[in-house]
Amino acid sequence: MGPPQLERHIFICTNRRDPANPKGCCASKGAEKVREAFKKAVFDEDLRATMRANAAGCLDQCDHGVTVVVYPEQVWYGRVTLQDVPEIVSSHLKGGVPVERLRIR
Amino acid sequence: MGPPQLERHIFICTNRRDPANPKGCCASKGAEKVREAFKKAVFDEDLRATMRANAAGCLDQCDHGVTVVVYPEQVWYGRVTLQDVPEIVSSHLKGGVPVERLRIR
Repeated sequence: MGPPQLERHIFICTNRRDPANPKGCCASKGAEKVREAFKKAVFDEDLRATMRANAAGCLDQCDHGVTVVVYPEQVWYGRVTLQDVPEIVSSHLKGGVPVERLRIR
Repeated sequence: MGPPQLERHIFICTNRRDPANPKGCCASKGAEKVREAFKKAVFDEDLRATMRANAAGCLDQCDHGVTVVVYPEQVWYGRVTLQDVPEIVSSHLKGGVPVERLRIR
């Protein structure tokens, strides 16, 4: 099997810190559920041949809530909730149009 | 703080499976040490402003040993060992020339 040629690769920060850490973390803000929703969408929408969603370590955007970065275009999203996943999937992953309201500015 | 504009983003599969699982996993092949070596190199070589190394979940290249993917160019490396990290850093990350012998074919 050769290397995948992914059209899009989605990384979701699922870093978990000690609850006492003032930086907080994506895991405490629902990142695991966001990750699961992306994985399920890639499966359900039959995108597995060209897209993949993966958990990632700390993406260093801790002020911006649950952080997602989509490659190869390197679009950064912040404060992503479970409710935002379908829009990112349909608009960006399938349609090629990033969801502007969620982009980290 | 705006979104980072990373010149390169390195993802290292550190997935861990049950030792009884026949698929094996990157974690059992030294992936954590590879991840640490990339993170240390990014720090030591003063690349933090433009590069980042992150752990990732399963990159689905389980036949190819410890797997690393570098974005935005989407270069996939397999069977990466601790000894390979300095060459990837100097040739690819700093020099822009992927290490051909390590690429997944």
